[in-house]
Amino acid sequence: MTTPRTPKIPYGGDYNPEQWPEAVMDDDHRLFTRAGIDTLTVGVFTWSLTQPAPDTYDFTVLDRILDRAAAEGRRVCLATGTAALPPWLAKRHPEVNRTDFEGRRHRYGQRHNFCPSSPAYRAHATELASRLAERYAHHPALLAWHVNNEYGGACYCGLCAEAFRAWLRDRHGTLDALNDAWCTAFWSHRYTDWDQIEPPNALTEHWRGPDHTAFQGITLDYSRFTTDALLGCFLAEKEVIRAHDPDTPVTTNFMGAFRPLDYHRWAPHLDFASWDNYPPPDAPPTRPALAHDLMRGLKDGAPFWLMEQTPSTTACRDVNPLRRPGELRLATFQAIAHGADAALYFQMRASRGACEKYHGAVIGHAGRDDTRVFGEATELGQELAALGDRTLGARTPARTALLFDWDSWWSLEISDGPSRLVKYPDVVHAHYRAAREAGADVDVIPQTADLTPYDVVLAPALHMVKGDLAARLEAVAERGGTVLTTFLSGRVDEHDRAFLTDVPGPLAPLMGVRVDEWDARPPEFAQPVPELRSEARLVFEIVRPRGAEPVATYGTDFYAGTPAVTRNRFGAGEGWYVATALDQPGVDEVVRRILTRHELLGPYAGHPAVETATRVAPDGTRLFFLLNHACEPARLTAHATATDLLTGKRVDRGQPLVLDPYGVVVLQ
Amino acid sequence: MTTPRTPKIPYGGDYNPEQWPEAVMDDDHRLFTRAGIDTLTVGVFTWSLTQPAPDTYDFTVLDRILDRAAAEGRRVCLATGTAALPPWLAKRHPEVNRTDFEGRRHRYGQRHNFCPSSPAYRAHATELASRLAERYAHHPALLAWHVNNEYGGACYCGLCAEAFRAWLRDRHGTLDALNDAWCTAFWSHRYTDWDQIEPPNALTEHWRGPDHTAFQGITLDYSRFTTDALLGCFLAEKEVIRAHDPDTPVTTNFMGAFRPLDYHRWAPHLDFASWDNYPPPDAPPTRPALAHDLMRGLKDGAPFWLMEQTPSTTACRDVNPLRRPGELRLATFQAIAHGADAALYFQMRASRGACEKYHGAVIGHAGRDDTRVFGEATELGQELAALGDRTLGARTPARTALLFDWDSWWSLEISDGPSRLVKYPDVVHAHYRAAREAGADVDVIPQTADLTPYDVVLAPALHMVKGDLAARLEAVAERGGTVLTTFLSGRVDEHDRAFLTDVPGPLAPLMGVRVDEWDARPPEFAQPVPELRSEARLVFEIVRPRGAEPVATYGTDFYAGTPAVTRNRFGAGEGWYVATALDQPGVDEVVRRILTRHELLGPYAGHPAVETATRVAPDGTRLFFLLNHACEPARLTAHATATDLLTGKRVDRGQPLVLDPYGVVVLQ
Amino acid sequence: MTTPRTPKIPYGGDYNPEQWPEAVMDDDHRLFTRAGIDTLTVGVFTWSLTQPAPDTYDFTVLDRILDRAAAEGRRVCLATGTAALPPWLAKRHPEVNRTDFEGRRHRYGQRHNFCPSSPAYRAHATELASRLAERYAHHPALLAWHVNNEYGGACYCGLCAEAFRAWLRDRHGTLDALNDAWCTAFWSHRYTDWDQIEPPNALTEHWRGPDHTAFQGITLDYSRFTTDALLGCFLAEKEVIRAHDPDTPVTTNFMGAFRPLDYHRWAPHLDFASWDNYPPPDAPPTRPALAHDLMRGLKDGAPFWLMEQTPSTTACRDVNPLRRPGELRLATFQAIAHGADAALYFQMRASRGACEKYHGAVIGHAGRDDTRVFGEATELGQELAALGDRTLGARTPARTALLFDWDSWWSLEISDGPSRLVKYPDVVHAHYRAAREAGADVDVIPQTADLTPYDVVLAPALHMVKGDLAARLEAVAERGGTVLTTFLSGRVDEHDRAFLTDVPGPLAPLMGVRVDEWDARPPEFAQPVPELRSEARLVFEIVRPRGAEPVATYGTDFYAGTPAVTRNRFGAGEGWYVATALDQPGVDEVVRRILTRHELLGPYAGHPAVETATRVAPDGTRLFFLLNHACEPARLTAHATATDLLTGKRVDRGQPLVLDPYGVVVLQ
Repeated sequence: MTTPRTPKIPYGGDYNPEQWPEAVMDDDHRLFTRAGIDTLTVGVFTWSLTQPAPDTYDFTVLDRILDRAAAEGRRVCLATGTAALPPWLAKRHPEVNRTDFEGRRHRYGQRHNFCPSSPAYRAHATELASRLAERYAHHPALLAWHVNNEYGGACYCGLCAEAFRAWLRDRHGTLDALNDAWCTAFWSHRYTDWDQIEPPNALTEHWRGPDHTAFQGITLDYSRFTTDALLGCFLAEKEVIRAHDPDTPVTTNFMGAFRPLDYHRWAPHLDFASWDNYPPPDAPPTRPALAHDLMRGLKDGAPFWLMEQTPSTTACRDVNPLRRPGELRLATFQAIAHGADAALYFQMRASRGACEKYHGAVIGHAGRDDTRVFGEATELGQELAALGDRTLGARTPARTALLFDWDSWWSLEISDGPSRLVKYPDVVHAHYRAAREAGADVDVIPQTADLTPYDVVLAPALHMVKGDLAARLEAVAERGGTVLTTFLSGRVDEHDRAFLTDVPGPLAPLMGVRVDEWDARPPEFAQPVPELRSEARLVFEIVRPRGAEPVATYGTDFYAGTPAVTRNRFGAGEGWYVATALDQPGVDEVVRRILTRHELLGPYAGHPAVETATRVAPDGTRLFFLLNHACEPARLTAHATATDLLTGKRVDRGQPLVLDPYGVVVLQ
Repeated sequence: MTTPRTPKIPYGGDYNPEQWPEAVMDDDHRLFTRAGIDTLTVGVFTWSLTQPAPDTYDFTVLDRILDRAAAEGRRVCLATGTAALPPWLAKRHPEVNRTDFEGRRHRYGQRHNFCPSSPAYRAHATELASRLAERYAHHPALLAWHVNNEYGGACYCGLCAEAFRAWLRDRHGTLDALNDAWCTAFWSHRYTDWDQIEPPNALTEHWRGPDHTAFQGITLDYSRFTTDALLGCFLAEKEVIRAHDPDTPVTTNFMGAFRPLDYHRWAPHLDFASWDNYPPPDAPPTRPALAHDLMRGLKDGAPFWLMEQTPSTTACRDVNPLRRPGELRLATFQAIAHGADAALYFQMRASRGACEKYHGAVIGHAGRDDTRVFGEATELGQELAALGDRTLGARTPARTALLFDWDSWWSLEISDGPSRLVKYPDVVHAHYRAAREAGADVDVIPQTADLTPYDVVLAPALHMVKGDLAARLEAVAERGGTVLTTFLSGRVDEHDRAFLTDVPGPLAPLMGVRVDEWDARPPEFAQPVPELRSEARLVFEIVRPRGAEPVATYGTDFYAGTPAVTRNRFGAGEGWYVATALDQPGVDEVVRRILTRHELLGPYAGHPAVETATRVAPDGTRLFFLLNHACEPARLTAHATATDLLTGKRVDRGQPLVLDPYGVVVLQ
Repeated sequence: MTTPRTPKIPYGGDYNPEQWPEAVMDDDHRLFTRAGIDTLTVGVFTWSLTQPAPDTYDFTVLDRILDRAAAEGRRVCLATGTAALPPWLAKRHPEVNRTDFEGRRHRYGQRHNFCPSSPAYRAHATELASRLAERYAHHPALLAWHVNNEYGGACYCGLCAEAFRAWLRDRHGTLDALNDAWCTAFWSHRYTDWDQIEPPNALTEHWRGPDHTAFQGITLDYSRFTTDALLGCFLAEKEVIRAHDPDTPVTTNFMGAFRPLDYHRWAPHLDFASWDNYPPPDAPPTRPALAHDLMRGLKDGAPFWLMEQTPSTTACRDVNPLRRPGELRLATFQAIAHGADAALYFQMRASRGACEKYHGAVIGHAGRDDTRVFGEATELGQELAALGDRTLGARTPARTALLFDWDSWWSLEISDGPSRLVKYPDVVHAHYRAAREAGADVDVIPQTADLTPYDVVLAPALHMVKGDLAARLEAVAERGGTVLTTFLSGRVDEHDRAFLTDVPGPLAPLMGVRVDEWDARPPEFAQPVPELRSEARLVFEIVRPRGAEPVATYGTDFYAGTPAVTRNRFGAGEGWYVATALDQPGVDEVVRRILTRHELLGPYAGHPAVETATRVAPDGTRLFFLLNHACEPARLTAHATATDLLTGKRVDRGQPLVLDPYGVVVLQ
């Protein structure tokens, strides 16, 4: 099963008319029609309404919403609504509430508040999902199932302790194997009974917080367990939906590069991927782009849904800037350029109360249609209507892959030493950004993915190396490709045990280097890397070339003159090793040299504010997106003769091609 | 009943001879006489001494203190001593200890440590107060009753949960009404039984701390409940005092602009207001002035008592600077200028041990009378003696009002979005400071106050608008007055629900503007407002004038040229809207334009370091205070011919009038 | 009993072969031989291995390790292994786990995780120690007993509450005495039953953390109780060891200037002192030097063991820099110069997993002998072998003493006011550094120590003055010596009660000053002290000389011109008072004037990067260490004719003496 089939990009978003008097719904649909809204996400937080008591279900409101949507010709992405407990359930079964990292059983409040191991939660949630599926499986408005919402967080209660022990038995088989995996000989931790194992938290192995653990093995396994426990909740709901509805695609909304859950473990179980895009205020455009590509990589390049974005502002941050005119449109086309087949908002109408009342909405509290935001949403609706199905189902023909690995993320950031300041997403993003700004399309893929389609494989901060990955990376180089990895890669096995060989462990032969020691320094210290006109920071591995040649060297300290970057010939290809956290210009230079070798530099690589992306439609049409992220016009020279899908204007190769501030062109 | 009647300003403060050998009391009274000390606050923390066991009361020490005071001709402000539990009560009734925001039941310690909902606490505290009242009602030293001490903090225990539910029933009547008020349709919170409601804290609706709540409605109601629960404790004690003593005025010491308690809900129940003034080290003098005026506003302009200030240093801060020579005198006359009819210290003699041993005192550990601090206290005592009754009972003839509203404070600061960085007291203070430094006397009043006496009403950051306030503000303008409000005003109703109209909601007609959207930016971003030669920060509402005329505009970004400040003619008056957090010069300029319109600029508005204040004595005498807050002399030209009450010197209008550094003149 | 007798400096460190396959041990010993490793610390965390179940002991692995060591001619420092609980014990007796400062009972995890008051822990730990002693008392490899590991932390459980009350009865005798000592009349805390007393923590007397307490008395006593409770654990193990082994010296590894435990209370009970040296990354070399001298002072100047240091990097810090070439050797000789008779590492081989896997080791994960670190360790091994016994048993002939007092540390840092920013170790270090960089050997001693050997006694920040200390300090001056003390000295008695006399209390006569008041300012404020070309910060006491003469004065504020430093003639000597936190140049100037008076300036006082230290061997040989802490060569002129023990080279007085970067010379 795959992404829902639609005649055009679904446009709309979260819609909660249960928060309003019934009469408001008339207004809503009038405004939806005006703005070209055709898709509504419904029921995300209606549990307490739909099931007001243990034995009482009441679908009146949902019926009304779905029937009205159908009558208006709109489609519904129907949520099971199990992400926020109803008060009665929390009161009746206190164990459905989570126990937090500090070991405190919560009472009732907020959302994402259920223990994934609680049988009472599981039973009630699946029963609700089942009844919804039974009732709406064949509703004409139904377009997709939306299970729960933004799964995340962890629970540390007794039920989870039990479930964790069962999960560990499954994974390790015997206590001897577990003791070996976790290195329990260290600090007298040899377990002699499964019952002795407690969830790792502030009352057990942790200090200062979730990243500081005495035993990386148990903490890592608890992250995996939590991923699987929440996935179990999803699968239970999906199963009962399938029992009533074999056809409608099922998803749940992800959150991009979200550390708590390894989405790669979830990916096979979703019919299609979807996610909520709330980039941090000052993030460069490659941050959401990386998340888009990560989401696209979940289902092997299949299009995904942009399930949420704000039309104007968020509310949850300390400071919530406003999207300037044009930014919403640009962000939406960026999503499409990276593989989105839907463009949905949170939210259609502003909440009246509670913590999201200042979160942006297509329709504000006053219900007006003459606001700037409503105007921009309407214009975008018209553009998407005009675009029709021309981007639907298109795929990205990337020849560059970037490995993204939750296990490496976790193991790197829960490690004591060499530096708490190295952040996995920052290292990954620096390399992704370099490739993207150079004009390369990039697939962001799990480390288990097939690497044969790629000329270039970037594997930054690949702290953990598992299975046959090293061999598959060597095969890339063997056949002429280029593999890049960095400092703090190839350090640990699947249990976070150091490899008992030279660093970078299984990657050493491909990289042709040996690392015995590494320096770490505070962030204000900058190490010059003169050959790249770059500065490096945080961690400085001291590289002894073992076949590799230096590309760039450290400029100061006792390791001055030793390599900061190396290149190793391997088969017909190359292995590049970046031994330190180069600044962005340094990473740019390294990655561009690699891309140049494979003729993967884009035509507008000289314009870093202009993002480009290619999608190939099912009929083979090649769409080339140009996105100007600057608030100045971009003055380019057309690299090919083509037609802009959005305006119908033709540009001739070699002629001036001007992009407006925040402008978008889709060349065909 | 009103402020205690005294022949002069009561002078003295907290006195705890129970901490010392009996012989020290002789020394104390010798020094008191020398320093002109005539009033002692007694018994604030003597519960464990007065009632050493459940059934044992022992008034020996209090008898001794009061009898000696009477013998020396001094008066006593007698505390009920119920602000700190005795150890036996905490051990015998563990539920009298508070459960904190983190959900942890405390054991025994500190002070302000009682659960306000605990029947055991209530019974023991009122029994103690009753016995004290019975014993001392007719004691010749008794001048006033001081119930408890610095009420504050909150409890989240099961007893409070029960009491909260009862309070909610009272307030909302039905669960339907409560669900509607709190918008519980959001995040599946529809309550179906009162028992499902839990106090909002770290185990329920909150994350990151008390300001981050999923449901503003419940958090707001808990602040109101806490205010009322502690008020209930006060009222219970007052009631038993009144049973024995119908005449002596009763107070409790407040803490100025203290967020946890809505003092306006308390004000009707106090016979007179009193407060403890500990301004932060680098606060401008308008900070304590604002608090003084807020306290004076509690009882409709009646004089209050300055119950505590330090003669030299505090101890509780990370850094505790010393009051420089003259600062104590200046601060004391500032209090009097703003309506204080008493000048009391914490404390008379320095504690020997525990956490306040380094808090300043009139008499230090060595018991000397030749220290600088004792000397300044003595000189001040002489001045107050010479002043006699001339300031007692005087009132402030302000024509400018500033609305101060705890509900707006709470709702603004627990809001998600647009900016966590906006602090209610800062916005209020900026406007207060502007008016004060321009020479206007200002009444700081609740939003329910009668507005008819005022020409100018400043209503900054009036996030919540309730009842007929908008109409009363319109009436001010209608009759020719000026009303100012700012960004983030007129946003929510009494339940923190957004108004379903254009921003600023009920204030929109008076302001003649409409706001659809607002930008928020980090504090390092400054938005120029050229017409005011000012910079704005944090929040930038985008104003569409609907009748109003722009006074000043934004200088940059896509909303450059749109109004930052507007003026709207309304009836015979005006509504001014300030759409952003202007810097102090910007606020000054706006407020001075308004004051100028009403001829409210003071004669020394050009000397910002010179504070002026007017008080009108009961016999109609007009006293004009000049306070020089600079460490340089202030060289003024006398605006009128008058006599300085402190020196007896006459100044003629138009002649030089020089104020010493930290100098004070009281012109009559 | 004393430091173990050895033919040369024991060289080696923590060795945990139980973490590795048996075969690795062969490699280890091959490498040990190569590097000159002769001493291994064994069994520190083997409890779960040695006692896998309540009734099962298994010494197979320890036998193997010790037998092999003996076979290879190496000696063992054998740990009792009681610092980290085995999982079964924590599960079976949950009360052995600690209850933390927040009042939370921990489950199982980490290390240093036992409640010192738990009978179950005590019984199991001593039984284990007893069996180890029985088994290995006469093992040929045994060199020393190492009880537990890095004792520290505190527990706040019910068992500790009981033990605390018993400890208090012992200390105070009666509740009246305790009430008096703690000043419980403050805040209604008068206790009427011992059971009312709770451990001071976040649920009782504390807010914001361990330094913020309502009652200094109880918090201070809890620190003393914790010191004694953990000491009780040590003594119980030592006792059972002694029962089987009357001869082998017993130690436990300390942590230098470690605030939680008053090592002076422990010192008499250790046969010899030992400690783990992990100086913070940017600490000047006088920081570890101070710790060395403090450790040497524990046993009245007897040599101690350097039990741990890293050969390369730590792992536990946010940023873990690498020891540069030469730094390890320099740090090792610094330890020897200050009295170390052993040079041990943590650790011999890098942990494979868990939180110390990136902590440096002599042998890395790859097991190589051609790394830089292994190379430096080997060269150092050769130097130590060549040095033989020539430094063993040597003592430091210091004429300068620095008082180091845990009670003053605690009382100063838990005090409310005048400034939370004053840190005891910083004030102490500034004065120590001044003396050391001027070339004086310094004994760091408890306040109870005999002061007769010293010409100069530095007593900075001596907040608490107990017993006859003031008289003994006066005696130093009386006979011609110099005593220095500083701001915030002489403030409180043994119960943290302020002295009821002029500041600095019992030190006032010696200092000839009187202090009535003190200013405190934020750290960005600098007060010039022109006579010393210095700036002062944080706290500024206002000194009234009472016999003393000003040495330097404050440059600004209302106390400009009053003394910042004074000198008082007293008998044949002097008392110096430093009334503020001078910067280092200011402290240097003051201390050098004092040292000059006693002709204690060293020959290289003009070279602050060159540390000097003298040791006198048992045979009277005088060894003079020169340590160059700079990365530049130090070009000196020899002050005497002598031979370098390390190279055998002779230098003549007046001839150039060049020290390499990080270079060491030991002149005989």
